[in-house]
Amino acid sequence: MATQEATDVYEEFEDHVRRLTYVGDAAGVLQWDQEVVMPEGGTPARSKQTSALSTLKHELLTDDRLGEWLDELESADLDPEREAVVREVRRDHERAVRVPSDLVERISETTSNALPVWKQARQEDDFDAFADTLEEIVQLKREYAEAIDPDRDPYEVLFEEYEPYLGLDTVERVLERLRDELVPLIDDIQDSDVDLADPFSGTYDEAAQEELVREALDYLGYDWDRGRLDTAPHPFSSGTQFDARVTTRFDPEDPLDALGSTIHEFGHATYTQGLPREEYGTPLGDSRDLSVHESQSRLWENHVGRSQPFFEGFAPSIADHLGVDADPRALYEAANTVHPDNLIRVEADELTYHMHIVLRFEIERDLIQGDLDVAEVPQVWNEKMEEYLGVRPDTDAEGCLQDIHWTHGSFGYFPTYSLGSVLAAQLFAAAEDDLGSLDGRVHDGVFDPLREWLGENVHRHGARYTTDELIREATGEEFTADYFLDYAAGKYRSLYEV
Amino acid sequence: MATQEATDVYEEFEDHVRRLTYVGDAAGVLQWDQEVVMPEGGTPARSKQTSALSTLKHELLTDDRLGEWLDELESADLDPEREAVVREVRRDHERAVRVPSDLVERISETTSNALPVWKQARQEDDFDAFADTLEEIVQLKREYAEAIDPDRDPYEVLFEEYEPYLGLDTVERVLERLRDELVPLIDDIQDSDVDLADPFSGTYDEAAQEELVREALDYLGYDWDRGRLDTAPHPFSSGTQFDARVTTRFDPEDPLDALGSTIHEFGHATYTQGLPREEYGTPLGDSRDLSVHESQSRLWENHVGRSQPFFEGFAPSIADHLGVDADPRALYEAANTVHPDNLIRVEADELTYHMHIVLRFEIERDLIQGDLDVAEVPQVWNEKMEEYLGVRPDTDAEGCLQDIHWTHGSFGYFPTYSLGSVLAAQLFAAAEDDLGSLDGRVHDGVFDPLREWLGENVHRHGARYTTDELIREATGEEFTADYFLDYAAGKYRSLYEV
Repeated sequence: MATQEATDVYEEFEDHVRRLTYVGDAAGVLQWDQEVVMPEGGTPARSKQTSALSTLKHELLTDDRLGEWLDELESADLDPEREAVVREVRRDHERAVRVPSDLVERISETTSNALPVWKQARQEDDFDAFADTLEEIVQLKREYAEAIDPDRDPYEVLFEEYEPYLGLDTVERVLERLRDELVPLIDDIQDSDVDLADPFSGTYDEAAQEELVREALDYLGYDWDRGRLDTAPHPFSSGTQFDARVTTRFDPEDPLDALGSTIHEFGHATYTQGLPREEYGTPLGDSRDLSVHESQSRLWENHVGRSQPFFEGFAPSIADHLGVDADPRALYEAANTVHPDNLIRVEADELTYHMHIVLRFEIERDLIQGDLDVAEVPQVWNEKMEEYLGVRPDTDAEGCLQDIHWTHGSFGYFPTYSLGSVLAAQLFAAAEDDLGSLDGRVHDGVFDPLREWLGENVHRHGARYTTDELIREATGEEFTADYFLDYAAGKYRSLYEV
Repeated sequence: MATQEATDVYEEFEDHVRRLTYVGDAAGVLQWDQEVVMPEGGTPARSKQTSALSTLKHELLTDDRLGEWLDELESADLDPEREAVVREVRRDHERAVRVPSDLVERISETTSNALPVWKQARQEDDFDAFADTLEEIVQLKREYAEAIDPDRDPYEVLFEEYEPYLGLDTVERVLERLRDELVPLIDDIQDSDVDLADPFSGTYDEAAQEELVREALDYLGYDWDRGRLDTAPHPFSSGTQFDARVTTRFDPEDPLDALGSTIHEFGHATYTQGLPREEYGTPLGDSRDLSVHESQSRLWENHVGRSQPFFEGFAPSIADHLGVDADPRALYEAANTVHPDNLIRVEADELTYHMHIVLRFEIERDLIQGDLDVAEVPQVWNEKMEEYLGVRPDTDAEGCLQDIHWTHGSFGYFPTYSLGSVLAAQLFAAAEDDLGSLDGRVHDGVFDPLREWLGENVHRHGARYTTDELIREATGEEFTADYFLDYAAGKYRSLYEV
């Protein structure tokens, strides 16, 4: 194809892609509204609106012209940025056209109907009441994976919905290392006599906690002109580089929960705010997939917000708003206390969290690969909890029924949480390699150098690079769990003197 | 067409219509978000998202298949409800297909660019700086009207965008009567020696005012499960029968402003909440056009919220929240004080408001019909202000530059405000004809009978009837200004003893 012709085709193609993005982002606004401000009675209309946008988006994505443009552009001589756009859109287009729309509808209907079934089963601690539904979802997701690629491992195909560029072998390798190295560390911590400090007691007013987390967002450099903070039952962040919002929630007894969760969402939002504005509408202005996004939230949450230098700088604010005049060291210890006997993933500490993920990964992979029956899930869950964390749930409500993900049909999502933590450690080490130790700057409340380093090495690229390329570009190395395991061992062995 | 075939066609048609509605309502959520919660930096992305939805909606509305279904259904034997749906969709479809998309784009671009020009002209009190832009908008809107119907009066065609079923002759007849009968009444009031009470002085805390208007919404029976209250610089209501939200604003010196404005939006939202839920997505579940919508807001704002019985019941709440322990009569007088020397429409009282509308109507009609040059607008405006209200603006900023409507290209919108008031009086009279005087119930804070009467006679019909049919169904009469003029004369002659 001649250069001028390719340019013309590219422009038509790009207009279409932008439109697709805008419709998707409009749906994101509806979703934010539903979770944050919508009155309860609004659900029936909102479902219709969301579903109409989702159908329109699907039609734009599966449009025959899009396939033709992609064919033409793949044989043209494009610059690397445009090649990246073509690569990302091809991937989404292929996945969308390969799945028959009646299967999409069946999955949507089944998971939608599954929600109340799961809720009731969890409430009544009755896994059997949910088993048939879960079996149906597993079958549908296997069918879904097979429609996309009948020749590849179905779990890998599902996992690629969330993280397309790391490969199942990498995930398995990384998660096995986490299991093999963290289980003994957690064992040692359980045997430790050290009691970490906890300067909090009683309850803390929601308004005071909100002032505190707003101040934390200021302190870290959140751009309020392109964001806002609200509360939501399940904190999340959403939006675009022009409007990247965060949410949080408040536990009256545990103000560090809101603080950590807010800093986590700040990390996501800072990534989003750092995407190039002039590229809004194409993958060059969109974030990389879930592992990278999660690395940004975990980096700020754990490597900054759970560090001793952070509390050295931020302790006065905690004293101001909560009236807790604690030593920074005591705050640091409180933020890093390990609770191996905790059964609930979303309440887990930084360390044992990964065991919750490994367990879910192993179970969901085996379910999809056909190596585990749905009926066996409770037993396997409890055995693995005992093996990895030394604790056994008394009920399935506190065990295999606790998470919503499988009810949504989100098989392959869980591993991205741990991959994000692992990548956070690798990126933080690379940043310190370039900038020198960040302890002093974090102590002084100076976060610009880190934010700029992440902006330069991660955010500004959007989805220009694949995940593995982005990691190599930013760190000079392949993806590795070394940094995370070093960080975890160093921090927790020192805290617990083991 | 055979019955079964017509049913099948109707179903396909209705699916398409519902989808169109859902996309429009999704755009409504984005609009609410933009005006109420969006951070300032969000504008560039929001414009793209809104414009993408607007294009998709336009494509759905001008879809050739929709035209074919309409042709087929118009020759089929449908029940009256389905006939009404076909009638409403035909109207929107025709208007959309007749206007060339490049004209739509030129209007959108011109009005979008006009906004900062108008703002600056208003700020600098420089009409000449806005004149060329206004001229361009007038020309484009004439072109627009001609595209829709070259054989009809262009102003009537534009007016029908907002109120398709009352006809320009009716509007002219009604607005002339308002002018002819209200001008002498306002004259008499100006000559009156009566000073109405004003129990308010100083400033009132925004939080206290918000508690007060929330209590007013409770008191009137707003369904919070399907709505919410927020603040916005220009109060509005929006949403669906599942989620009908209101906004208000607070003037520290004038708490009755927020109260009146909130009750006004309550009227709109109560109409929306009263639309049949099972019909959501088609015109049967959508509101009738602007005159009817405005009649609902004005009925609650003026006939209920500005009545003496209302203040008899609600005075204790005003005392509670604002610390103003005033006589109900004094509150009634304060809420109904006439200010003929006020120059600003949005600050006008219930009575002189209509002179602001008549003036705008006469000017915009003459502009569109080619009987007035843009350059003459300031002079004609000032002359009419003097003639109708006995006051002459010193500046165009307080005169013909005060409203945003023409900058938006909204010619034909203004009259619906007065038509709404006129219809409110007619409906309120019909309700009292059926239910007996409502004074006692309003005094007692019992609003269910009125809300149910409106629900039964107006809300539940959606757009089943044309405006004129709906008025006949609800009141047993043709649309008439008699009731409004009786009400206005009775109320204000008594208040001012003239």
